[in-house]
Amino acid sequence: MYAIIVYDVGVERIDAVRHILKKYLTWIQNSAFEGEITTGKLEEVRILIANVIDKEKDSVVVYSINNPAWIEKKTWGRDKGTTDNVL
Amino acid sequence: MYAIIVYDVGVERIDAVRHILKKYLTWIQNSAFEGEITTGKLEEVRILIANVIDKEKDSVVVYSINNPAWIEKKTWGRDKGTTDNVL
Repeated sequence: MYAIIVYDVGVERIDAVRHILKKYLTWIQNSAFEGEITTGKLEEVRILIANVIDKEKDSVVVYSINNPAWIEKKTWGRDKGTTDNVL
Repeated sequence: MYAIIVYDVGVERIDAVRHILKKYLTWIQNSAFEGEITTGKLEEVRILIANVIDKEKDSVVVYSINNPAWIEKKTWGRDKGTTDNVL
């Protein structure tokens, strides 16, 4: 599956979340990662993330889609992550 | 179509970007909006956003998908936007 993960966490926890996500997915911009991932690996990420975030304050949203071809991606402005069409 | 918009912009431009996006989409968490939108409206958003961002520094990534049923969404931690399943 293809996953897009966006996170809004306390500043003191950003590095810990980013450190986990970059082992599994591609950094797109601050607070956003994406990439191919298996259900099992996504569950691994969930458990690791659950150990570092404050569940009352922090928000991590995971969008997953079976076929990446179904999703179109555009970048307006600077493409900080992978190379993609730009504004 | 359904759109997910994530942005990583200079702090002095965050309010301007958020002000535009909240007229068209639902705020999910800092730097992330989502919702149903037409191609025409998305083009409107693109033009408005292009007028407020610094195209050399700021990054606005737009994921769009024809059918929202194709995308699964999960929230780990706190659901800051709409009500959805939580960790």
